[in-house]
Amino acid sequence: MTVEKQFTIHKGDVVALQDEKQRVYLIGTNNSTDKYKGVGVFNPKDLVGKKYGSQTIIGAKNFFLFPVSIHDALTGLKRKAQIILAKDAGQIIINCSITPGKKVLEAGIGSGSLTTVLASIVGETGQVISYDIREDFIEHAKKNLSTTRLLNRVTTKNKDVTTGIEENDLDVIILDMPNPWDAIVHAYNALKPGGYLCTYSPLISQVEQSVKEMQKHPFVNIKTIETIEREMVVGERGTRPSFNMLGHTGYLTFARKTL
Amino acid sequence: MTVEKQFTIHKGDVVALQDEKQRVYLIGTNNSTDKYKGVGVFNPKDLVGKKYGSQTIIGAKNFFLFPVSIHDALTGLKRKAQIILAKDAGQIIINCSITPGKKVLEAGIGSGSLTTVLASIVGETGQVISYDIREDFIEHAKKNLSTTRLLNRVTTKNKDVTTGIEENDLDVIILDMPNPWDAIVHAYNALKPGGYLCTYSPLISQVEQSVKEMQKHPFVNIKTIETIEREMVVGERGTRPSFNMLGHTGYLTFARKTL
Amino acid sequence: MTVEKQFTIHKGDVVALQDEKQRVYLIGTNNSTDKYKGVGVFNPKDLVGKKYGSQTIIGAKNFFLFPVSIHDALTGLKRKAQIILAKDAGQIIINCSITPGKKVLEAGIGSGSLTTVLASIVGETGQVISYDIREDFIEHAKKNLSTTRLLNRVTTKNKDVTTGIEENDLDVIILDMPNPWDAIVHAYNALKPGGYLCTYSPLISQVEQSVKEMQKHPFVNIKTIETIEREMVVGERGTRPSFNMLGHTGYLTFARKTL
Amino acid sequence: MTVEKQFTIHKGDVVALQDEKQRVYLIGTNNSTDKYKGVGVFNPKDLVGKKYGSQTIIGAKNFFLFPVSIHDALTGLKRKAQIILAKDAGQIIINCSITPGKKVLEAGIGSGSLTTVLASIVGETGQVISYDIREDFIEHAKKNLSTTRLLNRVTTKNKDVTTGIEENDLDVIILDMPNPWDAIVHAYNALKPGGYLCTYSPLISQVEQSVKEMQKHPFVNIKTIETIEREMVVGERGTRPSFNMLGHTGYLTFARKTL
Repeated sequence: MTVEKQFTIHKGDVVALQDEKQRVYLIGTNNSTDKYKGVGVFNPKDLVGKKYGSQTIIGAKNFFLFPVSIHDALTGLKRKAQIILAKDAGQIIINCSITPGKKVLEAGIGSGSLTTVLASIVGETGQVISYDIREDFIEHAKKNLSTTRLLNRVTTKNKDVTTGIEENDLDVIILDMPNPWDAIVHAYNALKPGGYLCTYSPLISQVEQSVKEMQKHPFVNIKTIETIEREMVVGERGTRPSFNMLGHTGYLTFARKTL
Repeated sequence: MTVEKQFTIHKGDVVALQDEKQRVYLIGTNNSTDKYKGVGVFNPKDLVGKKYGSQTIIGAKNFFLFPVSIHDALTGLKRKAQIILAKDAGQIIINCSITPGKKVLEAGIGSGSLTTVLASIVGETGQVISYDIREDFIEHAKKNLSTTRLLNRVTTKNKDVTTGIEENDLDVIILDMPNPWDAIVHAYNALKPGGYLCTYSPLISQVEQSVKEMQKHPFVNIKTIETIEREMVVGERGTRPSFNMLGHTGYLTFARKTL
Repeated sequence: MTVEKQFTIHKGDVVALQDEKQRVYLIGTNNSTDKYKGVGVFNPKDLVGKKYGSQTIIGAKNFFLFPVSIHDALTGLKRKAQIILAKDAGQIIINCSITPGKKVLEAGIGSGSLTTVLASIVGETGQVISYDIREDFIEHAKKNLSTTRLLNRVTTKNKDVTTGIEENDLDVIILDMPNPWDAIVHAYNALKPGGYLCTYSPLISQVEQSVKEMQKHPFVNIKTIETIEREMVVGERGTRPSFNMLGHTGYLTFARKTL
Repeated sequence: MTVEKQFTIHKGDVVALQDEKQRVYLIGTNNSTDKYKGVGVFNPKDLVGKKYGSQTIIGAKNFFLFPVSIHDALTGLKRKAQIILAKDAGQIIINCSITPGKKVLEAGIGSGSLTTVLASIVGETGQVISYDIREDFIEHAKKNLSTTRLLNRVTTKNKDVTTGIEENDLDVIILDMPNPWDAIVHAYNALKPGGYLCTYSPLISQVEQSVKEMQKHPFVNIKTIETIEREMVVGERGTRPSFNMLGHTGYLTFARKTL
């Protein structure tokens, strides 16, 4: 493959179209002419042969054409629930040591945003298992994962994780649900020795109840953190933090299984 | 392999020994009897056959035996320079879309802490290229990477990245150096279309100079963030943020290459 | 005066009317029947004889009747420019040691929000001098100060503070203007020994230029801070930081004059 | 009085001596020759006639001579308990509308640091009442207040505020104690209509219990905040937040009495 070809959009590619307001639309080049939300009526096959990194005009709007990054996948995802932010997803990846080949369970799936990150990082050799009590969330998330071609790495289960975990020897379990404490005993049993448990909760009361439950089991290195992101605006006259800032997403609690 | 065997320490494994103050020592079980800093005199071969996740007493100290996680690799790393924290490493992974198989360049290598994270995430199919102007840093980092068995994924170069980048079609370039702006033109040329550039700088003046240089090239989505981590202490009587807090590490600036 | 009388609204009082959305309207009971913005058509004299701390219905809305606090004065103030927040005003008061009887100069006056705080704290025995290059801002601020009966403690000057300060032996000078550095030499000369200088700037570049100018004069204890306020939401199910948060107001730099 | 005289240290003045590490020692010029901690052996009467804002050498150390500011009073105070920081004291002053002439009650007194701020702001015409269950804290605080000549504005009571408040018609009540909720009913009764209640607590559980108790009484505008201060270091090569940062002091909850 020549370099030319390598960075050219091919038949079957999923392309991230980014408009001037940095909104991202994920479009498969196998799709047919249709009205695409945010883009307008066009034939995705027309993208084939164009260069990644180039700009194209569709209707009256200008779009950058990008290969789908994690950021594109999260930004272009169709939302049904709050999505995970990079600041929190990044902490989960590093603190739980999520690397290629790992077997990771999450509950619940939400819109599939954390699922997207996890599946991206564990790669072809890894596996993500995703429990959710709501079938509609699972179906919605599967559509998102299908768009970004990550669905084959993900096993979904319409099941309440507080009633038990069927998998064994998991590397990581992430509980993003209102009552994580009810699943902690199952998480302990389903994890590998040295495996990581993570809970993600907006409320201090949830953190307290989770930590207390973790302390009943041989978990060590129990630690709760909050991650705050500030954007810095670099302008003509100087630099300052952005006036706009998200006040809170959630607390992350990490713990590691011992025998 | 039976489950029993799977979670047993084998000949040749590198084991993370964690003491009661959560300090981590990385020891290869092929090593010979010696005095190991923080552990004392012992024969690493004695670890073979023990269970991961179990505790063992060496000298008068108690240690948990863990498979080496990213956290262990960073905590157990021998330091010669400031190491990257999870909060910043995580943002880099997610915002630069570093996934298995990616080809990532960093400059400089420091103690090899970011290198460790990058090599862990890109996996066996990926590649990390690391430039540093100081041979002693490279040698020191290589020892750390050798300990954690990640060296085979890393190519080091004793070279000033501001004089040029020899590689092409890189997915990501991370500049963790005092004058990143001097390397940005080379970074632009060496990146794939849609590839990500990241600079990591403690000072606002560095951010400003980097952003100004990025704006001279067809980079888009230029964004600077600061990530602040607060630990929450969950105690008997209630929960509060930790009194101890790191005030600052550095600003991360991200940009994406277009044509 | 009996207790009954003491907490009763008297003829001539200015009353803070707070509606159910915690918006505050400052109304003098000497005023005539009129349409008052946010309140509706009513006769302020009807408030006389009612109790402070009680509720009254005007039109279809319910209002608490309060004696005017600093918070009321700031919230009820008519805005023409960004107003100072409690977090920043409080730091100025404590760090500049603004106490009853002090003589304080500020430039510029804006909508008179900081002026309101300063005049409230220096009291009847103190004095606030306020420079602004814009006559319209001065007139607007004077109306606000007149509403809260603080105008007699404030001397306004339609003058550019960078051309000189006419006053001497000032306890405190606060520069809330785009180019504070241009006034610093005058501030040094106009301050008492041991007096405090404060600059309030949104941009890092402004901070740097101000600090550099301060360092040319015998100022000591030069210190720049940023103050971040997070609201905690205490709900039925638990407590969390508010999702809404102001990302930035400005940096405060303090310095103290020596001989 | 001529200007010369005005800024000259007089017999009877209390002087803030600041050393090169910005430590502050408060010395009365009426005192006799003695060994003063941090200063050494000297005769305070030697300070008389020197200029405020000037430097003097005592022993081998250089000191700036300042009139006592709030910052000096807090820094020079002898500590027996955690002292209040400017960021929190400032929020209390502004949010509780503490101005000259106000009658303010606090419990407990600690080392008298908040007492110092309150007494400074309410001035000669105001009054601070301070409850503490520990006689030794009261005695210690009184010494500090005596040094800064603020004791005449403060009434101390060796009394448990949860058993009742003897004063009436208070403008502000500040509860800085482990169980503020037990005093809230008394605080409600002792406050003026429109008066402010403030609790200062390090733990979320304390905030929750206090807020719940406030909600049982006709308090309005109940609001909990956390104030975070970051120092910015302006150096030769650029500016950055300080690496040193205090992670937490306490949460402030404010409420206003209605009838």
